[in-house]
Amino acid sequence: MSRDYSLGEIAAYLGGELRGDAETRIIGLNTLQSAGEGQLSFLANPKYVKYLSGSLAEAVLLTADTAKTFKGCCIVVRDPYLAYAQISAWFDASQKKSFGIHATASIHAAATVADDVYIGPNVVVEADANIDSGCHLEANSFVGAGSSIGANSFVGANVSIYHDVEIGSGAIIHSGAVVGADGFGIAPKPDGGWQKIHQIGGVTIGDNVEIGACTSIDRGALQDTRVGNGVKLDNHVQIAHNAVVGDNTAMAAYSGLAGSAEVGSNCILAGDVCVVGHIKVCDNVQITARTLVTKSITEPGSYSSGATPLMPTAEWRRNSVRIGQLDKIARTVNKLNKE
Amino acid sequence: MSRDYSLGEIAAYLGGELRGDAETRIIGLNTLQSAGEGQLSFLANPKYVKYLSGSLAEAVLLTADTAKTFKGCCIVVRDPYLAYAQISAWFDASQKKSFGIHATASIHAAATVADDVYIGPNVVVEADANIDSGCHLEANSFVGAGSSIGANSFVGANVSIYHDVEIGSGAIIHSGAVVGADGFGIAPKPDGGWQKIHQIGGVTIGDNVEIGACTSIDRGALQDTRVGNGVKLDNHVQIAHNAVVGDNTAMAAYSGLAGSAEVGSNCILAGDVCVVGHIKVCDNVQITARTLVTKSITEPGSYSSGATPLMPTAEWRRNSVRIGQLDKIARTVNKLNKE
Amino acid sequence: MSRDYSLGEIAAYLGGELRGDAETRIIGLNTLQSAGEGQLSFLANPKYVKYLSGSLAEAVLLTADTAKTFKGCCIVVRDPYLAYAQISAWFDASQKKSFGIHATASIHAAATVADDVYIGPNVVVEADANIDSGCHLEANSFVGAGSSIGANSFVGANVSIYHDVEIGSGAIIHSGAVVGADGFGIAPKPDGGWQKIHQIGGVTIGDNVEIGACTSIDRGALQDTRVGNGVKLDNHVQIAHNAVVGDNTAMAAYSGLAGSAEVGSNCILAGDVCVVGHIKVCDNVQITARTLVTKSITEPGSYSSGATPLMPTAEWRRNSVRIGQLDKIARTVNKLNKE
Repeated sequence: MSRDYSLGEIAAYLGGELRGDAETRIIGLNTLQSAGEGQLSFLANPKYVKYLSGSLAEAVLLTADTAKTFKGCCIVVRDPYLAYAQISAWFDASQKKSFGIHATASIHAAATVADDVYIGPNVVVEADANIDSGCHLEANSFVGAGSSIGANSFVGANVSIYHDVEIGSGAIIHSGAVVGADGFGIAPKPDGGWQKIHQIGGVTIGDNVEIGACTSIDRGALQDTRVGNGVKLDNHVQIAHNAVVGDNTAMAAYSGLAGSAEVGSNCILAGDVCVVGHIKVCDNVQITARTLVTKSITEPGSYSSGATPLMPTAEWRRNSVRIGQLDKIARTVNKLNKE
Repeated sequence: MSRDYSLGEIAAYLGGELRGDAETRIIGLNTLQSAGEGQLSFLANPKYVKYLSGSLAEAVLLTADTAKTFKGCCIVVRDPYLAYAQISAWFDASQKKSFGIHATASIHAAATVADDVYIGPNVVVEADANIDSGCHLEANSFVGAGSSIGANSFVGANVSIYHDVEIGSGAIIHSGAVVGADGFGIAPKPDGGWQKIHQIGGVTIGDNVEIGACTSIDRGALQDTRVGNGVKLDNHVQIAHNAVVGDNTAMAAYSGLAGSAEVGSNCILAGDVCVVGHIKVCDNVQITARTLVTKSITEPGSYSSGATPLMPTAEWRRNSVRIGQLDKIARTVNKLNKE
Repeated sequence: MSRDYSLGEIAAYLGGELRGDAETRIIGLNTLQSAGEGQLSFLANPKYVKYLSGSLAEAVLLTADTAKTFKGCCIVVRDPYLAYAQISAWFDASQKKSFGIHATASIHAAATVADDVYIGPNVVVEADANIDSGCHLEANSFVGAGSSIGANSFVGANVSIYHDVEIGSGAIIHSGAVVGADGFGIAPKPDGGWQKIHQIGGVTIGDNVEIGACTSIDRGALQDTRVGNGVKLDNHVQIAHNAVVGDNTAMAAYSGLAGSAEVGSNCILAGDVCVVGHIKVCDNVQITARTLVTKSITEPGSYSSGATPLMPTAEWRRNSVRIGQLDKIARTVNKLNKE
């Protein structure tokens, strides 16, 4: 299925300088350690430089600096990692399917579906939904009433998109993701128990957003939950009702925003970072794994909490129990220090 | 699609005192800051009182106290947040579908399905399952053999309900949720590896339970996993085999109960709270975000662990490393204090 | 539906010594406290020995030691918990369905499907996929192009398996699980935003692997993500691209491996354990709940971090704030200690 390409056309596409034979055929990508005949590799992380000279790769993407002492075939680019990312699409074996609507799909008569789309078996598109040009909706996915999906988007198998959700162009939504389920809105009743707050807002998602497997983005209580352009969400992410994710922010697996939390643009949330409700994180903030963001962050930079040192369990127990005594310890230290 | 209502009928429904024109038409709900013509708002959180006087809302739900100085149109109620929750259903644009069974649904001949239900495309209902009056089963959902779903329940698209699961009336089960998958039961084999323990219990869920997107409730090993009446589960919640959730308890996103853990009634578990296996939490307990409940709780109240202060990463590293020295520090402090 | 068995045949299957009437009929399994007529129970945990003498179980699985003083009917086995696990399959009411392919299933003409399989309603099997003998694919599940599923595997309703995923024999994959979605691969662009790295590796999963509900295993960036034989994954687990899980390792709910993390064989990760990217955990390691594994582990044993003592919230706040002062406290202690 996969095509092969000449080094010359690859170098031209990447805007890199080819040092080697432009006619050499490249059939795949691989790491320096594993690459073999016909495979292109790259050196992005300095710690892998030790694998460069022994690599059997047909050619390597290098910076001008690393290329200096390299005797093999290479393409010199400014950023080898970015160049590898750019060329990766050429070697993606997951071919887009031919356009067409499978006979078992249920498309409501009042839905608007472009001609050049792939709609797989058992896909359901409800009334007033809009599926734009170039979209691929994989098998058993669901698009609720009044929702729209922008051009050239991919919706994986078993994805659920509720009603009145607006998704921009170029989206990639992976299997098991849920967009537009009710936010967790409940009000305590005087006699005990909870009164459901109907979630009458929607979800607005910008262009070029990727949504990972089993990730959920809830609809807003009154206004929309908002995800900006270029946002990248990993698997098992939770975006609660009325949360806001700024443009180009990336959130790794298990990271979540509680209700009405706002995260700015160009932020990076590592795995399992949770942001509590109704606080704001400004632009250009990085947050390390497993941090609980309990208050607003107003200055760009890197922030942390929570992740304590790894150690043998017995040692951890001895130290952990002291955390419960910490206030007393601190008071004693203060007292001793004063004396 | 959405209807409009008179202020008079809204006030009557809420049992509130209307101060304004009963004939005024209300077409929607919104926040104080965003509400405009024809929209009803509410003041629940004192920190938003600053937005009251400038609000363009057609009318506002207020307490007698906040209404005193308010010159606009309002409905005086005991609890404006509850009143907003109660009236929210009137403005929910996600119309229930007309009753009927889609031609592509697969309903087993030995299943019992009430006449007045909506069953969407590709829904599968297996043998001996029972779907009660007023239920809505959205597209591509699955109900396994012998399971029953009580009256007026909503089952979202791509929900999976395994065999022999009993769900009460008024349930709301969001897309991607899984009820009745096998509990994580494995026994170590003498020669290494694991012997699966078949999970032969079921799941029993009470009335008026909401289950969030991508939430899982496992079936019991021998007896049933049990979820009480009025329980509200957010997204990505995990209820392991034989866990018990008491009536009206609410669990926010990522909170989970390990096997055979029991949480009482009227508890609130904030986000990412995990309760380890085989322990009990009594009624009326609140647990703050990201707490790991490692031992039983026998007294009502608020409990915590885990969430440490947020700070710049460099500062966190300096402090975090000290946690690994904490036992030694504490011993030194004790020694110095004795001296 | 469920069959009944004689104590004699059960004892023979387990290789145990029967003390009682071999003709006694057993219709089910239950705990010591709840078992009644016709039910078999077991004593595995010494803390339940108090329930033994009063149990109404028809027979009990016991060790030679606990059997000494027991007057009732019992089967003496080396490991009662393992014996219970082994016999549990006999009492599993979730009958495997008869072989056959439902009329609504969409099986691509270029897929290879064994004759003796069950393929439920709306199941989709794409081109060049291979479904081996004895497999059960439940309703609305999806198997992408070129993927293969080994003999006697169970694929739950609404499971999504992407293209080019290889799964061994005897797999159990629960509803909502996603195998082969794109890894979270993005490269920063010089002008801001992210360049997607197409994930051109696959997923290789060994034999006898169980994958829990809502669990995701991403495909590799260049090479395959690998899950060994006998691996057991609970619900909401995340295996990121190019991670490696060694044979017979078990991971409880919410535990996750970041990209290229490697965990050895026979490890046990408790709930919510996360392993950061590009590190290695050796064989025979146990990691306690909620630990963040931030560095490689090279010696077998038990490791921990993170889970601090549970306490009333007010007390926690007093202690927690001191964590932010810990470096200062430690310096003061050191100074005082030197003086």
